[in-house]
Amino acid sequence: MNDRSQQLERWEERTDALLAVASLVFLAGYAVRILGHDLPLVWRDVCLGFTYAAWALFAVDYLVRLWLSGLRPLRFLRTHLLDTVVLLLPLLRPLRMVTEYDKIQRRRDQPRLTLYVRVMAYAGLSSILLGFAGALTVYSYEYGAPGASIRTFGDSIWWACSTLSTVGYGDVSPVTPGGRVTAVGLMACGLALLGAVTGSFSSWLVQVFTREDEKRPPGNSPGAS
Amino acid sequence: MNDRSQQLERWEERTDALLAVASLVFLAGYAVRILGHDLPLVWRDVCLGFTYAAWALFAVDYLVRLWLSGLRPLRFLRTHLLDTVVLLLPLLRPLRMVTEYDKIQRRRDQPRLTLYVRVMAYAGLSSILLGFAGALTVYSYEYGAPGASIRTFGDSIWWACSTLSTVGYGDVSPVTPGGRVTAVGLMACGLALLGAVTGSFSSWLVQVFTREDEKRPPGNSPGAS
Amino acid sequence: MNDRSQQLERWEERTDALLAVASLVFLAGYAVRILGHDLPLVWRDVCLGFTYAAWALFAVDYLVRLWLSGLRPLRFLRTHLLDTVVLLLPLLRPLRMVTEYDKIQRRRDQPRLTLYVRVMAYAGLSSILLGFAGALTVYSYEYGAPGASIRTFGDSIWWACSTLSTVGYGDVSPVTPGGRVTAVGLMACGLALLGAVTGSFSSWLVQVFTREDEKRPPGNSPGAS
Amino acid sequence: MNDRSQQLERWEERTDALLAVASLVFLAGYAVRILGHDLPLVWRDVCLGFTYAAWALFAVDYLVRLWLSGLRPLRFLRTHLLDTVVLLLPLLRPLRMVTEYDKIQRRRDQPRLTLYVRVMAYAGLSSILLGFAGALTVYSYEYGAPGASIRTFGDSIWWACSTLSTVGYGDVSPVTPGGRVTAVGLMACGLALLGAVTGSFSSWLVQVFTREDEKRPPGNSPGAS
Repeated sequence: MNDRSQQLERWEERTDALLAVASLVFLAGYAVRILGHDLPLVWRDVCLGFTYAAWALFAVDYLVRLWLSGLRPLRFLRTHLLDTVVLLLPLLRPLRMVTEYDKIQRRRDQPRLTLYVRVMAYAGLSSILLGFAGALTVYSYEYGAPGASIRTFGDSIWWACSTLSTVGYGDVSPVTPGGRVTAVGLMACGLALLGAVTGSFSSWLVQVFTREDEKRPPGNSPGAS
Repeated sequence: MNDRSQQLERWEERTDALLAVASLVFLAGYAVRILGHDLPLVWRDVCLGFTYAAWALFAVDYLVRLWLSGLRPLRFLRTHLLDTVVLLLPLLRPLRMVTEYDKIQRRRDQPRLTLYVRVMAYAGLSSILLGFAGALTVYSYEYGAPGASIRTFGDSIWWACSTLSTVGYGDVSPVTPGGRVTAVGLMACGLALLGAVTGSFSSWLVQVFTREDEKRPPGNSPGAS
Repeated sequence: MNDRSQQLERWEERTDALLAVASLVFLAGYAVRILGHDLPLVWRDVCLGFTYAAWALFAVDYLVRLWLSGLRPLRFLRTHLLDTVVLLLPLLRPLRMVTEYDKIQRRRDQPRLTLYVRVMAYAGLSSILLGFAGALTVYSYEYGAPGASIRTFGDSIWWACSTLSTVGYGDVSPVTPGGRVTAVGLMACGLALLGAVTGSFSSWLVQVFTREDEKRPPGNSPGAS
Repeated sequence: MNDRSQQLERWEERTDALLAVASLVFLAGYAVRILGHDLPLVWRDVCLGFTYAAWALFAVDYLVRLWLSGLRPLRFLRTHLLDTVVLLLPLLRPLRMVTEYDKIQRRRDQPRLTLYVRVMAYAGLSSILLGFAGALTVYSYEYGAPGASIRTFGDSIWWACSTLSTVGYGDVSPVTPGGRVTAVGLMACGLALLGAVTGSFSSWLVQVFTREDEKRPPGNSPGAS
């Protein structure tokens, strides 16, 4: 078992940089394929190829980890929930950045991020990535649909922002069934995550004020002490 | 008294499967009656019949439980609030699924769901059921109304999702008095429930991060220990 | 001082019923005056008269209480904040119903409402009253304005509900400066109150589930014990 | 070090009034420049001049404080986060009013504001200032844009209020890229702050009710004790 966990660690060290590049390729390939509807077909197919290749890398990485963990697939799925979610939605891969930053801070013997800040970082980053992916997907459905109010990618980003903040102006909104199903998914995931951000921010603010209260003695003119 | 609680238990064992089927029949009957406005009248009346029959079963079950409990009606109403709500809104019957799952887990000696997860499951399931029922009811009012923006059942589902998430695009919205009253009811129930889901999710996220913090010692390179 | 508090108590006992009637008269007078724009002018002036008379009663009651309390005006204002708010917005008078219900429960030696339920009752009732008053006031501004989308009182109620739930469809919305200022006031007060309701409901739900957890022993088939 | 903190104190005493005036000049200059599009160009340039001059004052104040603190720039930036934010967004300068009020209360030996009230005051004030600045900036982009629905500054204020409360009617909404980017910034900052206000208000309400519960003995007819 100890042997395996060493192998796992070595595997992670070697593949970390490759997978970070692959996740960028995945995002870029997906975005170019959708946004570049004026590009020649061959280029769009190349993009699709890159996207699938990146996804294949993630799948291979997942299988190697499964094998190295020595667990049964179902149990691995349950104990490595974040990895599984990242496999299905590689757009969320950059979430690992938070963990990486944490590791770097630890090596330098600097204090870790506090709990609330980490929740905010994770949930905020997820919201941004899901919002970007949602805007891309909705745009791919709405582009060219008759009667669509989302006509440019800028409209789509604007729509995603107004949806995630639950403002929902309704000046632009999806009209195709595919676009609407994506929108409902974005609402369900995004709102819960944003709720976590707002809740953590509020708790953190109260914490900061409480600490300030304790630091400052009752009679606190700066020159008195 | 002990005798009665045994009778109650036997009653529940015998009727559980029947009532589960009845609740499906109720939902299906209600949905087909509203969505099938092109069916011959006789079929729609059959659906109505099934719906009322399912409701009658729930009423009989409620009365038998009331009798077996040996309590006065008003006291029973207060101590069995969930049962009463389910009697009035049989659409919420599937909520009992969460309790059933809980029982199965206990039989297998597996850990129960944590508090937050159960609140999320109950409130999330209620939101979905209420949203579906609200979309059906609003559709039945809006269908064929002059100047209505909700024209298909898909529009109605889209409207219910945008309402429950408080996004409220307003590209489709009810215009008939009946539809609007249903909408206000959906807002009142649904928003409170979704607030519970978001709040629980946020608390659960903080809990997961806290536990992870405790599990992981300060110097946590995986191979070091 | 003790003498004065006895006088205060006697004053409250004698005026409670009168003030409750006055608050109903105030609400009814305000509503009839705004909704009855087809009534002869004399009737509308009568309504206005009743409204002012009810307000005058509240002012007299406030002054008598101030005198009986023996406090300086500014101090009284600060320690009796709810009374002052009720003086300025007599529409909130029915809030005292919650306190009355509490007193009745105590006389019958029945348990008081729990903290969360009382917060929900107060804040929910305030939201309904403020929403009703806001709908009335906005209607009085919008009625007959050119280009208004709020044309009937039903539209105004629908608008108030969609505003208080922060859904905000935007199918109807105020266009006059007066209506918009009222709307901003409604948002500011109402949202804070609804936040309190949602927060309390969520806390109460968690509390109920926690208590249920404790009540039920781990192996809880009903017939086993 | 003690010498420097005394110098810092003297610096703050001397510049406080000047900076308060400068922050008013900044706000007024920014507002007049945007709202006065019918003024002769020379006046608008004067406004711009005043705005930049006020900003320069803030920059000088920041540098002097940095020098007096004896810290390295990066460390100062991290420990004086609020000052840095105020330097970048001088519109938030009035936030210091809360601290000033606190100091005055302390001099008079009166109790400080409670934690929740201070969080509410800070976050509420920030929301109002950010909302006002956002409305100004959006108006400057939308004014005169073809197809804009925000045509007067009143429309812009109305839009900002409906955005900050997440109601989002959508009857008016920005259409220019610049206006939309500002809007997204307003959503991101404002919503988090308003979440803090709502959360604090809710906590404060619960606290008030809890205290009232404890104060009042079970049998609390006022004349009995």
